[in-house]
Amino acid sequence: MKELFNYLNGLIESGDYAKLKEEVNSEQPANIAEYFEELSAEKQLFIFRLLTKDMAAEVFSYMESDTQEHIAHSITDREVRHIVDEMFLDDTVDFLEEAPANLVKKVLRNTDAETRELINRFLNYPENSAGSLMTIEFVKLRINVTVLEAMQQIKRTGTDKETIYTCYVIDNHRKLIGVVPLRTLICAEDDQLIQDLMQDDVVSVLTTDDQEEVANIFKKYNWMALPVVDTEGRLVGIITVDDIVDVIEQETTEDMEKMAAVIPSSEEYLKTGVLALSKNRIVWLCVLMVSGTLSQVVINKYQNLLEIAVVLSSFITIITGTGGNAGSQASTMIIRGMALGEIQVRDALEVIWKEVRVGMICGVLLAAVNMLRLTLFSAGTNFWVDLTVSLSMALVVVLAKTIGCLLPILAKVLKLDPAMMAGPLISTVVDAVALIIYFTMAGFFVL
Amino acid sequence: MKELFNYLNGLIESGDYAKLKEEVNSEQPANIAEYFEELSAEKQLFIFRLLTKDMAAEVFSYMESDTQEHIAHSITDREVRHIVDEMFLDDTVDFLEEAPANLVKKVLRNTDAETRELINRFLNYPENSAGSLMTIEFVKLRINVTVLEAMQQIKRTGTDKETIYTCYVIDNHRKLIGVVPLRTLICAEDDQLIQDLMQDDVVSVLTTDDQEEVANIFKKYNWMALPVVDTEGRLVGIITVDDIVDVIEQETTEDMEKMAAVIPSSEEYLKTGVLALSKNRIVWLCVLMVSGTLSQVVINKYQNLLEIAVVLSSFITIITGTGGNAGSQASTMIIRGMALGEIQVRDALEVIWKEVRVGMICGVLLAAVNMLRLTLFSAGTNFWVDLTVSLSMALVVVLAKTIGCLLPILAKVLKLDPAMMAGPLISTVVDAVALIIYFTMAGFFVL
Repeated sequence: MKELFNYLNGLIESGDYAKLKEEVNSEQPANIAEYFEELSAEKQLFIFRLLTKDMAAEVFSYMESDTQEHIAHSITDREVRHIVDEMFLDDTVDFLEEAPANLVKKVLRNTDAETRELINRFLNYPENSAGSLMTIEFVKLRINVTVLEAMQQIKRTGTDKETIYTCYVIDNHRKLIGVVPLRTLICAEDDQLIQDLMQDDVVSVLTTDDQEEVANIFKKYNWMALPVVDTEGRLVGIITVDDIVDVIEQETTEDMEKMAAVIPSSEEYLKTGVLALSKNRIVWLCVLMVSGTLSQVVINKYQNLLEIAVVLSSFITIITGTGGNAGSQASTMIIRGMALGEIQVRDALEVIWKEVRVGMICGVLLAAVNMLRLTLFSAGTNFWVDLTVSLSMALVVVLAKTIGCLLPILAKVLKLDPAMMAGPLISTVVDAVALIIYFTMAGFFVL
Repeated sequence: MKELFNYLNGLIESGDYAKLKEEVNSEQPANIAEYFEELSAEKQLFIFRLLTKDMAAEVFSYMESDTQEHIAHSITDREVRHIVDEMFLDDTVDFLEEAPANLVKKVLRNTDAETRELINRFLNYPENSAGSLMTIEFVKLRINVTVLEAMQQIKRTGTDKETIYTCYVIDNHRKLIGVVPLRTLICAEDDQLIQDLMQDDVVSVLTTDDQEEVANIFKKYNWMALPVVDTEGRLVGIITVDDIVDVIEQETTEDMEKMAAVIPSSEEYLKTGVLALSKNRIVWLCVLMVSGTLSQVVINKYQNLLEIAVVLSSFITIITGTGGNAGSQASTMIIRGMALGEIQVRDALEVIWKEVRVGMICGVLLAAVNMLRLTLFSAGTNFWVDLTVSLSMALVVVLAKTIGCLLPILAKVLKLDPAMMAGPLISTVVDAVALIIYFTMAGFFVL
């Protein structure tokens, strides 16, 4: 990529604009869009105007949203019209969803009434719904046409469709009644009828369905496209698999952010301001700190014990830390398993029993290592303190594993997002439990 | 799905096998594969034998690997041959990669010499490489044929190809020289030549390239398929986008497991034994526990201070906990940003400066909330203890954010996986730092 950019920069500097125009128009649109990110605002506009109409629309749809805004602000109404005409509707909608109001107006002013109506309808679909993902540029076939007629229709209109590789069959009321892959048409005889070739058990989604459900259907069936219908079963759009790749990335990022006690945001890190980042983090930090009061109260209750054997305090972090880690391991595995559909609520008992046993194995091994470590290296502790620390560690690990798998399942039962029940929250709960176990045992062995 | 399964179960019970056969052969293969997971071993075999040759191969390729093994063990050599003949090579290889040696032998015994040679070559590609992902069933066109000839070739051979929607152009030495989407062929005139229609700047990957790189190319260009070449530039296979969806899931799961201090495994949770789960977790638990000795040593050093003011011990967990949470938030955002290619090593200074400021905002707010909480509700502490706790909290948050963003970047520079530098490890490092800050400040204010 670097070489291409240097080469293009060289052409700009040497003033060889004919060659430059030829090069930017023959490259991959995604690469030129990436090149725009390296350019100054004026150069962006200059290069953009070297692009052909088709290419300009394609490159535009790959750009970062702030570059799109800058370009759309700077070009004439006529140029806006060209781009919107050439772009697929879902890309236009993606752009407008992020754009400020004055830009949205500029774009809508430059589209015909029909497109304007469509864009407005799309902008009204709930965020992250199938409706907001879909495209309306797809191949609709009538049930009673022949393969030859269908192929002629595709040939005539194909270049304006997002995909021609899956064709949808509709009846007179625009109801979706079948699907036929282009492959079937190609391999069929010219005079065969669509109704004899189509598959009529079509899986479709509703405009209001959540994008995560849509992604799960794609993952299960390995399809290229999926039809979207309205509540009356009328075909209104399709979703293609390339958009789903983005959805999967976005959903996973959200899960990871929740698991780290961050409020999810769809903005890229480097483009998010310090205040926005702080706002997304402070809420959970504060909630968790206040919940941490629980541990503080527990330690407080055992002040007498600590006054007699202050050495006990030095093991507080190693015990709560190990508990937190053991719990995070369990909760992460369960949360991810549930997100991938591998673990269901009905598996709860199996999961818990598994974690208890894993906890026992890990706990016993850790306790043994810890006992060895303390006996060999520790200064200032006696056998009973070492034993207390090791035994509580074993017990804490078992409990942490149990809590770590229980909370995500509980969240699922309560229709909350299991991703919330990850490391940070688990640690806060485990901390308090771990300290009770530790001090109770210390009271027994050390006093 | 439940209804379908109940319906099919009903047909089995009532003995209406003609209807059953019709139903299982007309359903989506993925659904029938899911149905197999609900059946007993004998019923699986019974239903499998009701499937037509095509359908059997399709359903087989969607099955879980243990079901595949059971079926392949139980059927005759002749039936094995049918399935392998019908399956796409990449699905056969996927199955064999997981299968025990005696099954691999049974399958290889039942394939012709050419397929056997191919399968062996595939099994030798490094795990997670482009070679192990690709399929060899794709459309190869010669440069000097016409659109009509190409379409005839596709019509003749199309049903055996994994995709016909992207066609690849090769020269006499099987070198990849161009790519032409089927859409272009459909919309072109019959007598146009492939060489005039093809795009000759083809992006391809090597058989040895890692699947993560391959996934990144798909994400960038939104393509349906990507050609794979050997070191001499000869076209040996293609990768289709539906396989990439699985790769993305798998890579993210690995990242999440690493971030939770679990050694990644490709097995599903419910199918992994207790011993294997324990083995994947104990290593990091042990490493982190031993590293936790650092915090223990720090607290130990301040025993004198704790003996004078034992109340200080009750704030240990709330300070280390908040520090750990603040650090995890930062490290998760950076690790994810780097995995998505949004953050590079060259952005290090910008990232650190951002985190320092976020840390200051969050730290000051948390300290204020904490001061308020202690002043209003706390029993047994005086103003100086409250001040110590609050001030150290602010400082700890800033440092935790800095450490949280530094370590993943450092890992990247050292060519390690940034995902390792997540919550658990960050917390262990931050714990020790936080305690030093806290006790130093306590020594100053409280004594």
